Amino acid sequence: MINVGIIGLGYWGPNLLRNFADAAGARVTVVCDRDAARLAAAAARYPGVAATRDAREVFDDPGVDAVAIATPVSTHFELAMRALAAGKHVLVEKPMAASSAEAQRLIEEAARRRRVLMVDHTFVYTGAVRKIASLVSSGELGDIYYYDSVRVNLGLFQHDVNVIWDLAVHDLSVMDYVLPSRPRAVSATGVSHVAGGHENIAYLTLFFDNNLIAHIHVNWLAPVKIRRTLIGGSQRMIVYDDLEPSEKIKIYDKGITVNSQPDSVYQLLVGYRAGDMWAPQLPATEALKTEVAHFVECVERGTAPLTDGASGLRVVRLVEAASESMAARGRLIELDAPAGARS
Amino acid sequence: MINVGIIGLGYWGPNLLRNFADAAGARVTVVCDRDAARLAAAAARYPGVAATRDAREVFDDPGVDAVAIATPVSTHFELAMRALAAGKHVLVEKPMAASSAEAQRLIEEAARRRRVLMVDHTFVYTGAVRKIASLVSSGELGDIYYYDSVRVNLGLFQHDVNVIWDLAVHDLSVMDYVLPSRPRAVSATGVSHVAGGHENIAYLTLFFDNNLIAHIHVNWLAPVKIRRTLIGGSQRMIVYDDLEPSEKIKIYDKGITVNSQPDSVYQLLVGYRAGDMWAPQLPATEALKTEVAHFVECVERGTAPLTDGASGLRVVRLVEAASESMAARGRLIELDAPAGARS
Amino acid sequence: MINVGIIGLGYWGPNLLRNFADAAGARVTVVCDRDAARLAAAAARYPGVAATRDAREVFDDPGVDAVAIATPVSTHFELAMRALAAGKHVLVEKPMAASSAEAQRLIEEAARRRRVLMVDHTFVYTGAVRKIASLVSSGELGDIYYYDSVRVNLGLFQHDVNVIWDLAVHDLSVMDYVLPSRPRAVSATGVSHVAGGHENIAYLTLFFDNNLIAHIHVNWLAPVKIRRTLIGGSQRMIVYDDLEPSEKIKIYDKGITVNSQPDSVYQLLVGYRAGDMWAPQLPATEALKTEVAHFVECVERGTAPLTDGASGLRVVRLVEAASESMAARGRLIELDAPAGARS
Amino acid sequence: MINVGIIGLGYWGPNLLRNFADAAGARVTVVCDRDAARLAAAAARYPGVAATRDAREVFDDPGVDAVAIATPVSTHFELAMRALAAGKHVLVEKPMAASSAEAQRLIEEAARRRRVLMVDHTFVYTGAVRKIASLVSSGELGDIYYYDSVRVNLGLFQHDVNVIWDLAVHDLSVMDYVLPSRPRAVSATGVSHVAGGHENIAYLTLFFDNNLIAHIHVNWLAPVKIRRTLIGGSQRMIVYDDLEPSEKIKIYDKGITVNSQPDSVYQLLVGYRAGDMWAPQLPATEALKTEVAHFVECVERGTAPLTDGASGLRVVRLVEAASESMAARGRLIELDAPAGARS
Repeated sequence: MINVGIIGLGYWGPNLLRNFADAAGARVTVVCDRDAARLAAAAARYPGVAATRDAREVFDDPGVDAVAIATPVSTHFELAMRALAAGKHVLVEKPMAASSAEAQRLIEEAARRRRVLMVDHTFVYTGAVRKIASLVSSGELGDIYYYDSVRVNLGLFQHDVNVIWDLAVHDLSVMDYVLPSRPRAVSATGVSHVAGGHENIAYLTLFFDNNLIAHIHVNWLAPVKIRRTLIGGSQRMIVYDDLEPSEKIKIYDKGITVNSQPDSVYQLLVGYRAGDMWAPQLPATEALKTEVAHFVECVERGTAPLTDGASGLRVVRLVEAASESMAARGRLIELDAPAGARS
Repeated sequence: MINVGIIGLGYWGPNLLRNFADAAGARVTVVCDRDAARLAAAAARYPGVAATRDAREVFDDPGVDAVAIATPVSTHFELAMRALAAGKHVLVEKPMAASSAEAQRLIEEAARRRRVLMVDHTFVYTGAVRKIASLVSSGELGDIYYYDSVRVNLGLFQHDVNVIWDLAVHDLSVMDYVLPSRPRAVSATGVSHVAGGHENIAYLTLFFDNNLIAHIHVNWLAPVKIRRTLIGGSQRMIVYDDLEPSEKIKIYDKGITVNSQPDSVYQLLVGYRAGDMWAPQLPATEALKTEVAHFVECVERGTAPLTDGASGLRVVRLVEAASESMAARGRLIELDAPAGARS
Repeated sequence: MINVGIIGLGYWGPNLLRNFADAAGARVTVVCDRDAARLAAAAARYPGVAATRDAREVFDDPGVDAVAIATPVSTHFELAMRALAAGKHVLVEKPMAASSAEAQRLIEEAARRRRVLMVDHTFVYTGAVRKIASLVSSGELGDIYYYDSVRVNLGLFQHDVNVIWDLAVHDLSVMDYVLPSRPRAVSATGVSHVAGGHENIAYLTLFFDNNLIAHIHVNWLAPVKIRRTLIGGSQRMIVYDDLEPSEKIKIYDKGITVNSQPDSVYQLLVGYRAGDMWAPQLPATEALKTEVAHFVECVERGTAPLTDGASGLRVVRLVEAASESMAARGRLIELDAPAGARS
Repeated sequence: MINVGIIGLGYWGPNLLRNFADAAGARVTVVCDRDAARLAAAAARYPGVAATRDAREVFDDPGVDAVAIATPVSTHFELAMRALAAGKHVLVEKPMAASSAEAQRLIEEAARRRRVLMVDHTFVYTGAVRKIASLVSSGELGDIYYYDSVRVNLGLFQHDVNVIWDLAVHDLSVMDYVLPSRPRAVSATGVSHVAGGHENIAYLTLFFDNNLIAHIHVNWLAPVKIRRTLIGGSQRMIVYDDLEPSEKIKIYDKGITVNSQPDSVYQLLVGYRAGDMWAPQLPATEALKTEVAHFVECVERGTAPLTDGASGLRVVRLVEAASESMAARGRLIELDAPAGARS
């Protein structure tokens, strides 16, 4: 049984609270937020849990084994670092930190302290993304040709970060999990439609080896909500629509066949192959429930989580590089191969 | 009554033939194709029309007033130039020519000969695009913020050109017609998944003044067919789905309101406004019928067509620039302001 | 401030509890359920609320002004009658009672005791149904020609009632609210696919005066969930899809025009009229919140609720008649004009 | 090679003409219509085909082996009877005749003359319906529980028949082909919204043995076009949406499991089973091409067609019975087991 403190009870924190409260193997002992009303609401709902407006009380409490942080991104580094320094295991909301330098220091601190450092890349724990990862790694899709995601809606303009930090992080964390290799370079474009504001629309292209290409379209100013990803493989292709109540994933047995020995370009023969479509039944478990159980297990066993600090760092590096490219209207930013890259 | 010759009876030519045959004010007198079977089929269907495998017979026939050309793009320049030189009016399929230099020379020849030179930018003649243009120019959308188009399907890989020349041309011609200004620069990315082939997937970002941004996603290797454009304005936003049997255009009375005098970024207040959606009834007339009638009228009156050589040239220039950018993985290509640009 | 007791904390009761707890003008003082675990959960969430397994404690408590009942339908009559007899106002879940005789007696008791008796016809309090009612009563649809509803899904087979009692009640209560007249007769068909079970699929036709016809299709054994109603009027027509996240209501400016003086049937000329489609913005307020506020207001002011006992009785009568018709494979059941009928 | 005459060139006849003209093994030698303009159009398109306004010329021509009839239903009997009497094979548009008595006499005449008599139940020849029939007969769906079809749109009000004769015929012919047994009784309701017109909206329930139930909703006055059929089986369920460009058929591995030995109704346990969805690739062949090839083959080999006179008669009998029931507001009409019934 591990004792957990929750810091931050804004939009996402109450979901962490509820899932840790329900998790076997965990117990929430304290919650922390600067807002007294939020604290009161949490205390009323979970009478046995202590409430404080001072995070220090969480870190100083020797009875707290782990801390879950759901605060604005600019505070992630300081809070996570203090938690690790106090010997706590840490689950930190996405994006992991406000810079890759911060993310790197958190990884080092966690390693030194031998503590679990996990990033809340929630989509990685959905049934849909798990299924996609399984289809990719089993080879059923064949070679992966492209990954194309659209994530747009009319919605919350952030004050302190652009739309890449807010929305594209989801896609980057999914790609980090499901794709067989790491991006080599990024080119991004975007614009702000609010004077003095950050970019509210952005387009990212990620280049990989072997002609794999990925693209992300994020937009806070769209008339309709779209959450759709196309994944093209040499054998099969996927449409993943996260707004579908069921059938979120459709697998198309479609593709092309290429005459590999043409005498000339005019003899280049591309054949088209169309087959059945198949929508696998997906488990209905809430992603955060799966994620919290995984965190608890990692803490208990001392194992590395699926979405560890290294994955959090990779995602932050991509966000930084994409933002830099966007500021330079699409200038290509080469990415160093991070330690532990798959290929 | 103008006499028309049709050159090229492959995929698109029969549609031109049918529409010119049915048009008031026009009469098809001759059709031309290298393929005898296609000629025979056309002759059987239109018994009074002459058929030839030699385009020279069309150009040399003094009874032919105008020529419609629907051949591979690499032949557009030569055929159109010979037709103009022979004093014929010309309607040429999109894209206008294989290079902007060729397009420029066609414009000059048509001007010198005082002949109509029109490019078959078919979408400009659809009820949907006409309605969009009217909504933009009337100011109902407010300031235009973005134009985002997705045009993907599993389908015909071209041997001689990349997917931008094939599919993005449609979007570029629509943007040329509906948007209030011209793009200043382009950044494009893409890749080929067929060894020795041209790019089959591409992403184009076009930069305009006033924070207007446009983006086009084209793909020959998608599991599903998508033809959807989002247009964001400061007052209203449009979703244009060309695959909808009716309700192709939906106009959303949605948007944001910005507190224009914030004391600091943290006080930047963005409000969200949601209202009704409206799908105007659109005329069901076939676009090509409207287009052919427009061509006939321009010939008869000696007026400039809506999709004249200059628009054809602008589109070809964008395709060239985008292809150049794509080859350089997103390098920004600045566009010279073409003569006759709107802003 | 009225004090409310909630009886029944199964599927629907917790929603009543939450909405009464949040309502201005009301306070939940006691909850009642036979299941100790449910009581414990409610008590933990609402610490100030008393909890009992014996409904008598609710009825005997002079501090309780009103009772909300969300128990199995077979218990509605007894519990509501005891509450009224104890001088409480009553909100009872749909369907109002297990028979029209029971419903009639509840109406009489409430009248004698001068207490509010309201039936929880939740859909009547949704923004969508309110909008439909407004469009019908304003005459914008013209004469109402038909009302056609499909309400199917895979799901909960009831042990004690057929699918009409469970699902069609929703449609009947909506029709009772929005249609300009009352049905004169009903013909229903259906079948059970579970040995010893009640009908799990049913089709109801309701006949009105003036060639208005209504039809309801309900099914517990469908592969997909559908909640769609078509309403045809002489001027406009509505598609109401309750599963749409936004745009639940679409109004089509379509219809026919009839040459009213044909010389013969072969000269009967029907013209078709197609116009715009319009989806009005609907308020996002939770229906049950609106309903609870309405109940509180009726209690405070002593006014009759929109979904009063009479409407509950009319719906139960239709369910009874439809079930009788279904047992006789579609035999027409004439309906007596109930007291207070609109036409 | 059989020589074919086509009678009737209105809406459907030109499709028959085109498919017979393209069919291997057949040759169109003559077309017939009262309208000179239609004849001229057909003659221009098919120069080698004779054209006449007098059907007698078709019947009297000894070179004509078979006649395809696509005229108003009131003329089917006379034209088909004369064709059979002249020794021609006959393909007649649906519905086969204006009454079951007429249909019966055509069957007898064809038998006496040993000629092929086939009814143009086009849907039976689509890839989608073929697939459904195969899924039913192979047992993959399990026991068939219900067949539910919606076929509504805005349009063409017929002068001489009600909407059942026009639209429900399609569903009845599909059911005749795919269902494992024949209906025992029918109850139908409907109404006309045009003074002096036939019913433009109708609902049919068909009762079968073994708790199989079928329902058809047809409507000429709907704001949207719907063509959707749900088929429920004990093992799997189908959604067939004929308006889907691809994926017309979706097969759901869903259903219920019933505890078959409950001690009481309250112990009746229904379990829910959810699995994958699967959309089989369907052949893209035009249904009428398949149908015409089948007709030619039946003529050449002297075999009975899939949609023979008996199936045409069964459909007409159902239409008659449903119209009779509709006039009596749902009165149950028992159906005699027709000769050759499957069960």
